[in-house]
Formats: sequence, C-alpha cells, structure tokens
Amino acid sequence: MDMKNDRFFGVLIPVLTPFRRDYEPDLPTFLSFCRSLLEEGANGLAVFGTTSEANSLSLRERRTLLGALVEDGLDPKLLLPGTGAAAIPDAVELTRAAVEAGAGGVLMLPPFYYKGVSDDGLFRNFAEIIERVGESRLRVYLYHIPPVAQVPITLGLVERLLKVYPQQVAGMKDSGGDWKNTQAFLDAFARGGFDVFPGAETFLLQGMRHGGAGCISATANVNPAAIARLYDTWTAAGADAQQTRLDEIRGIFAKFPMIPALKAAVAHWSGEEAWRTVRPPLVALTGEQSAALVSQLEQAKFTMPGLRQ
Amino acid sequence: MDMKNDRFFGVLIPVLTPFRRDYEPDLPTFLSFCRSLLEEGANGLAVFGTTSEANSLSLRERRTLLGALVEDGLDPKLLLPGTGAAAIPDAVELTRAAVEAGAGGVLMLPPFYYKGVSDDGLFRNFAEIIERVGESRLRVYLYHIPPVAQVPITLGLVERLLKVYPQQVAGMKDSGGDWKNTQAFLDAFARGGFDVFPGAETFLLQGMRHGGAGCISATANVNPAAIARLYDTWTAAGADAQQTRLDEIRGIFAKFPMIPALKAAVAHWSGEEAWRTVRPPLVALTGEQSAALVSQLEQAKFTMPGLRQ
Repeated sequence: MDMKNDRFFGVLIPVLTPFRRDYEPDLPTFLSFCRSLLEEGANGLAVFGTTSEANSLSLRERRTLLGALVEDGLDPKLLLPGTGAAAIPDAVELTRAAVEAGAGGVLMLPPFYYKGVSDDGLFRNFAEIIERVGESRLRVYLYHIPPVAQVPITLGLVERLLKVYPQQVAGMKDSGGDWKNTQAFLDAFARGGFDVFPGAETFLLQGMRHGGAGCISATANVNPAAIARLYDTWTAAGADAQQTRLDEIRGIFAKFPMIPALKAAVAHWSGEEAWRTVRPPLVALTGEQSAALVSQLEQAKFTMPGLRQ
Repeated sequence: MDMKNDRFFGVLIPVLTPFRRDYEPDLPTFLSFCRSLLEEGANGLAVFGTTSEANSLSLRERRTLLGALVEDGLDPKLLLPGTGAAAIPDAVELTRAAVEAGAGGVLMLPPFYYKGVSDDGLFRNFAEIIERVGESRLRVYLYHIPPVAQVPITLGLVERLLKVYPQQVAGMKDSGGDWKNTQAFLDAFARGGFDVFPGAETFLLQGMRHGGAGCISATANVNPAAIARLYDTWTAAGADAQQTRLDEIRGIFAKFPMIPALKAAVAHWSGEEAWRTVRPPLVALTGEQSAALVSQLEQAKFTMPGLRQ
C-alpha cells in the first residue's frame, strides 16, 4: 500500500464524478475510472472534491459512492474523501462515514456559506466536528480553496488546531494558486508532520523542493501517469523538463472551464459521450469548445492511454 | 389570512433560529418566537433564511422545524421557508417538503458553492428543481444575496425563468443592498406579477413607492411592529419619519455582526441567555459588544415589548 506512516503522499486525484444524462451518478463508470487512475500511478483518490462536483451531490449520494468503492475492494486507506460542508451536522455525518469505512483521511472544506467569518469561528467549527466524530484514527486535511469557498484556511488557524488536535490534524490542500502562501505553510508546518499538498501539479516540483508532500490536482484526472512520474523522479535530472511538460498540458485545460473540460477530454478518449454531463450550475463545453480543446491537446501530442471503460 | 391572491406581501421575517448551548435547535423557543412575531404584525415568516443560520442546519433539522411549526397550528400559507442548496437533490427535497406542508412559497438561494457560474447553468439549476418537484402550486421566490452567496440572480435569468415557469416563479428577495438593482427588478417585473421584496427595511418605503411588495428583513426579528406599521401606513403622512426611525435602529445593529447582534438583543430583552448561541462558524458577541449594543439601543429608546418567552 502506498502509505508511509499512515500518511498520504504523492499524487492524489480529486476524481471526476460521472453522471448519466439524467444527472444520476454513474456508479459502474465511477468504479472503473477510480481503478484506472490507481493503475496509472495515483497514490490516492481524493474523491468528492471540488472537481468531483461533490457539493452538487447529496449526502446520501456521497455515502453511496463511498460505500460502493469500498465494497468493490478498493483499499480504503487510499481514499481521502471530501467531507466538509456548510453545516456541522453534515460534515460530522460524512466524516464519521469516512472513518468507519476506513478512509486514510478526509479533506475538509471550511463551512462555506457565510463570508468574512473569523478564525475563532472556524476553529470552533473544525473543533466541533473533530470532537463529535470522536475518533483518534481520524486524519483531517484542511482544504484551502479561496477562489471557490471564499473562506480561507490561515496560518493562525492551523497553528491553533495543531495545538489542540495534533493527531487528527494531518495536513492541507492549498488550492489558492499562490506559491507564496503554499511556501508559508511549508515553512511553518512541514517539518512538524503537517503535510502540505499544493492544489495543482503546477507547484509539484517547487513544492517537493520545499518539503511538500506531493499534489492534489484536478488535471491528474486526465494526466495521472505523467504527474506521478514527476513525483517519483523529482530528484532526478530532467525533472524541470517534466514540470514544463505538465504545465503545458494543464495550460491547455485552463483555457476552458476546468471541470467540463476534463470531462470532455475523458469523453473524447473513452468514447463515452455521457462523460460530458455535469450537474447544474456547471455547464458542459459546447461542441466548438470541445473540438478546440481536443485539437489543442492533440497538437501537444497529449492522449489518455490508461483509460479503461 | 394575510394573503392577497395567494401571494406574499408586507413584512416577512427570516426568523432567528434559537439554539441550546449544545447547538441543538431549541424547538419550544422557536415556536414561541414565531408566534410572537406574527402577533407583532409580521405578514409572513421566511424561516430558514441567512439570518436563521439555515445553511448551518442539516436537511433533517430544517424539515423537523418546519413540521413542528405546522403541527403547532401555524398557518402554513404564512411560511416562506428557505429551500435553496448547493446540491439539486437537497433543494428538491426541501422544496417538496415545503410544498407538501402547504407553505405559501419557498425562498430559493442559487447553488452557492461554485462561483462565476453562468446564467445558463443557473437557469438549468432552477428549472431542474421546479421540474423535479413537479407541483403547480409551488411558488418560488428567488434569493439574491451576492455578499454571501456570491452567485447573483440577474435580470436575464429572471426573464428566462418567467418565460418557462410563469406560475411557479413568483418573486424575489433582493439582499444586495443596492437600490439601483432593486429598482431595475421592480421596473422590469413588478407590473407582471413578479413580487420584489427588498432584503431590508432600509428600502421599504422607497420600494413601496416603486411597486415593491414589502420587505424581508433580518432586523424585523427585533423590530417587527414598527416595520409592519410603516408597511401598513406607507401612504400616510409621517411615513418618511417612520422610515428614518427604522433606519436609526437598524443602523445600531449594523455596527455589529448582524446575526449575533440580533440574538444578543433577544437574549437581553427576553432574559434567556441561551438566545446568544450561534452555530460556528458564527461567533456570539463578546460581553463588551453586547453591552455596547444594548446601551446604544437603550439610548435610542428601543425596546422589545412583544417578546413572549
């Protein structure tokens, strides 16, 4: 199993959630896609993240998908499900379900409805969830994604949480896209056993050189093997060239709405048109956008060899 | 019953949700508080709004509170529960429960997790909810509150929705705090039977003079009778002086975090200290803040005579 000291490391993937055309989760396709990502070299699956449209899913849907993965024989220690919610009872229910399923950890959004909330309020939120779940084996990774959640995870908040819950507070995902912020967290906490994952492979190499733990990246859904290879060989010659190539591919996806673009690429290379479906309020790429995306990816000699459908 | 043509009008109150010290909803206090607001002259109760900390409640908690109100004998046509959610299945569940309980309408947030979503995606979101609920008696009031939800309700979106669902799309609450926006919606839709409620009594008089339907305001939790009186007498002499007085009281609350300040005032005038409790990520006023609030309100000769505990 790909874990050192029961901690996540390497390339974790916020797995896309396939929907049928009626917006219901497509369970067989989800299971098959998860397996293919692990076969391609993913070190773990951060299911139910932002890229997974997890906040467009009900609690029951998330619990059903999690249960199906474990029942399907996937090692639960490789799972880092998203369990943050606007309401404490919801976060507690999802987190408890993840721990009971044996998940290696949970990736926890701050409560994201109210804006401008204080670190004091956020501390109480996370403390209340950890206390109510009441499990020493719980491992919480805090999820900093200010462009979406708008509510940040600050250095001061992490410091306070680590003081009271040094065992349960295990790390973070930094999806702020600001290297200076990632570096500040690495400098402050990485040597103390708090693992910092940049929220994109953009900062994979830079992160590893500063004590990072890997990355948790949307584009790892479509480019898992190459990202995992850089993680495995980041100290070797040619690492910078690998990073440049990863940036080139991500840069193409970043020209389009990210989640619909990732789904369009999977649809194209798998031949499964239903993969294009996103739940509202997201909207699938237009035919024109989709053609432009594929054309640019093909020009860059990108393909998805590992897809198994 | 205070309804013309089955539409809401007047002063609707996004009722504060009382919690016990362990953060559980205090049902008897909630029922009693709802009754006192109606006795004070509220024309309806917009339970489960932003002020109600509704997004800090689980679906089950919201459904339990709604069921208790109806079971307690409160006329369900006076209820405008908040039923918007980040996930379509959740919004459908809450909306269906509201319709089945006989609620006069629902106040619906846009899906608020993803930011920068298109009107096309928002249209599909609301359409999907209306279609899945599938009830001709459903009355949806769209909830525009960009400072919190960050996802706006635009003129174009309302126009599209009214075209397809003229019966179900009944109005909106505009909590943007920008009179020009409220006026644009009034100008575009008020004569067509789409009712626009400013999200604060600040614009009650101005709104009524431009075809508004009343207001839905947080501070109506603490000042219901005076706000209802302006609604009832807005065409009479002295309306401007009434508006000035309402603004004075609201202005005091607005110097503090609004929801904790409203709860602190209710705690002070009811003598029920538990009223101060807010769920994380909100934080109660400090003793100092609370004393300053009460002192300023007393100086302004404000009191809450109608509270029954």
